[in-house]
Amino acid sequence: MPQKPSIPKGTRDFSPAEVAKRNHIISVVKKHFERFGFLPIETPSFENSETLLGKYGEEGDRLIFKILNSGDFISKVDDVTYSSKNSNSLAPKITEKALRYDLTVPFARYVVMHQNEIDFPFKRYQIQPVWRADRPQKGRFREFYQCDADVVGANSLLQEVELIQLYDAVFSDLGLEGTTIKINNRKILYGIAEVIGAQNRLVDFTVALDKLDKIGEDAVKAEMISKGISENAIAKAAPLFSMIGTNEEKLEILSGLLSESELGMEGVEEVQAIQTHVEELGLNSASLQLDVTLARGLNYYTGAIFEVAAPSTVKMGSIGGGGRYDDLTGIFGLKDVSGVGISFGLDRIYLVLEELGLFPESLETSLDVLCLNFGEKEGVASLKLVSALRDFGLRADLYPSTSKVQKQFKYADKRKVPYVILLGEKELNAGQFIVKDMKTGNQESYALDNPKAFFQTL
Amino acid sequence: MPQKPSIPKGTRDFSPAEVAKRNHIISVVKKHFERFGFLPIETPSFENSETLLGKYGEEGDRLIFKILNSGDFISKVDDVTYSSKNSNSLAPKITEKALRYDLTVPFARYVVMHQNEIDFPFKRYQIQPVWRADRPQKGRFREFYQCDADVVGANSLLQEVELIQLYDAVFSDLGLEGTTIKINNRKILYGIAEVIGAQNRLVDFTVALDKLDKIGEDAVKAEMISKGISENAIAKAAPLFSMIGTNEEKLEILSGLLSESELGMEGVEEVQAIQTHVEELGLNSASLQLDVTLARGLNYYTGAIFEVAAPSTVKMGSIGGGGRYDDLTGIFGLKDVSGVGISFGLDRIYLVLEELGLFPESLETSLDVLCLNFGEKEGVASLKLVSALRDFGLRADLYPSTSKVQKQFKYADKRKVPYVILLGEKELNAGQFIVKDMKTGNQESYALDNPKAFFQTL
Repeated sequence: MPQKPSIPKGTRDFSPAEVAKRNHIISVVKKHFERFGFLPIETPSFENSETLLGKYGEEGDRLIFKILNSGDFISKVDDVTYSSKNSNSLAPKITEKALRYDLTVPFARYVVMHQNEIDFPFKRYQIQPVWRADRPQKGRFREFYQCDADVVGANSLLQEVELIQLYDAVFSDLGLEGTTIKINNRKILYGIAEVIGAQNRLVDFTVALDKLDKIGEDAVKAEMISKGISENAIAKAAPLFSMIGTNEEKLEILSGLLSESELGMEGVEEVQAIQTHVEELGLNSASLQLDVTLARGLNYYTGAIFEVAAPSTVKMGSIGGGGRYDDLTGIFGLKDVSGVGISFGLDRIYLVLEELGLFPESLETSLDVLCLNFGEKEGVASLKLVSALRDFGLRADLYPSTSKVQKQFKYADKRKVPYVILLGEKELNAGQFIVKDMKTGNQESYALDNPKAFFQTL
Repeated sequence: MPQKPSIPKGTRDFSPAEVAKRNHIISVVKKHFERFGFLPIETPSFENSETLLGKYGEEGDRLIFKILNSGDFISKVDDVTYSSKNSNSLAPKITEKALRYDLTVPFARYVVMHQNEIDFPFKRYQIQPVWRADRPQKGRFREFYQCDADVVGANSLLQEVELIQLYDAVFSDLGLEGTTIKINNRKILYGIAEVIGAQNRLVDFTVALDKLDKIGEDAVKAEMISKGISENAIAKAAPLFSMIGTNEEKLEILSGLLSESELGMEGVEEVQAIQTHVEELGLNSASLQLDVTLARGLNYYTGAIFEVAAPSTVKMGSIGGGGRYDDLTGIFGLKDVSGVGISFGLDRIYLVLEELGLFPESLETSLDVLCLNFGEKEGVASLKLVSALRDFGLRADLYPSTSKVQKQFKYADKRKVPYVILLGEKELNAGQFIVKDMKTGNQESYALDNPKAFFQTL
């Protein structure tokens, strides 16, 4: 009895239609990465465990897929460790490699390993899958693609400006208008914590503040107090509760609040400069919005942070994010390399485009011409014709079997083929082929020795 | 002390130049897959262990990378198994998933799982990495790409003809002329074994016969005898020792030899039909050669088998291979689905193109225009200009830092940028920018408010 096949939970098969849509997004992202001067690299799917472990916090370590050593892996485990029968002590003895968890740590490793070959400043992009042993749920998978662009070795704020333009270029090209690029700065967050005297409660503070729109000022304050933030701190933070309006207005409020914090003011000035430049350059369809509640979990960010929200008509978490980090390669021994980067969330962008019907209709056509198959003799003549069509650059095919004509037409319908060629015995004897336009139903005859007459109508 | 980073043996980082060359090959392969009507699918990087184990023989099972179960994996091992401290009994208890070993078994699994959604005949292509715990050596890696195209659900020999055309189309497009597409048929091999009465020595027989060119008839016969093949069998096989000449001539010899073997004659007729059709349709740069010593290891092949050899000026193993299989999906419970497919060996094709200098020079240019960076004020004006160039479809960049001009020019040289834009204070005040042609050294001025005047010269 053969097994009934299945795939591991949290993983996916992609059908031709899905691959076409995913490739559409990837090719648009890639096109703009390249127009913006980014260079592609690729790193191995698995890294040495020590490259990855300890880089994503305790939770991250738990979610890293580890690869069992090959061969007689257990013979290398000492008796003391073995007798403990403890997963945590055994794992490092029987695994040396682990699947990539994100593209950022492998990139840092790459930069350090290849520092003598790289022409800095280095603008790299990378589009590859990553793996996480997370609990699968809607929109969260154990294997998914990341699409990252980073610039390392350049301090200029114009990088941040360019990355905002890059987001705008990609989403505009995908037809996804009305995205909001939220910006904040880690220095502003440190400044707020400093000024209100709540350094160790910063996350609770921003999480609560983020709910201002939804639950109102009083409820936010109540939540803050319940989290151990003092009334005094909340009072000092009062200006943040009235932070509405344009980016300029918000920056003015922040300038007042953070005037005593050197770091905080640095952050304000950075956002101010970015905002000014972006306004001068203009965006196609996205808007830039200062959001002081934006924190982003990753602790390597040190300056600007970004997150992109889909148009408000779609309910979806962020479809992109990034920021500036000052010492990513330090963990591998290369100090003082500043970097800034952004990421596109392929799976979520896919869901958004699907929901808004923004995938181009042309993706549904995977074959331009199907030639029906009437038997071996006609088949070879058909293959000659099909070859000519392919040489002309068309996607063309001879139906692979000599099935009933009705079945072959049904196949053409399902594959949404716009033109079907009929080349049966009668046509062959007359030195002709018939082209049926599947949309209109019209049929046209052409001479077999001059197929160009047909191509040229396309 | 930070760790000195490295990558696992048998894996590779790909630099931007290498990615560009690999993508060149992949995009040509993909283009022709699509022109030939193949549809892309993608399957997960890891499969359930039971999907893969037992499908590639004992050696294959050993080479499959297994993924350690997450969480407290060891607590699920019973005491009896644990106390054995035996890797073979422990592995299935602590791993449930394994990395893809090839694309064929996952494809068979896909076809069975999705049989109700697929429109048969199904022509699928798949370009994804696979992993093998093989001993790494020159040209053999633990992570490498496979590029496969298969047709399932169609018996017509015209499929084989098309696959030969596909090889020819891809290699011709890559500029790799003079490849030899070797063809044989499993039925011919069975026929030979049957006729000479050496069924259980077929591999030894073909391995020895394969050396005919190199070591001569006597040495080949000596090797056969040393492998336990009887003198009687060798005598019966005599016609094979004089198999030179055209495919037609070889087929004639085989017809004589195999006239008593029904299966053998079927194989001869199949090769004959394929040869006739291919000759009628013509190939661009490849040649088709019947090679009766071609056996291919994979035991699922049942009909035609293919292997592609690079031009004889390059020393390289086969750069592609494939064949027909009659029951691939049977292992997963779907009977009677005939298939035929071919594979392109990306890494070896890369090495061949590199050796013959066949990568297009254009791949070396990753940036069309670099605008030098003279400071913040000029920077924003430059970014405006760069944005216009990008909108025009060019790959353009502002140098990411305000480094010394000499350093910026050096960077432009290294990246082989054809045009460098100078937009310093003087130019900005004059409302102009200067374009330097890096090949000729010529400089031209253009008005900042009419950058199109420059684009249009390109």
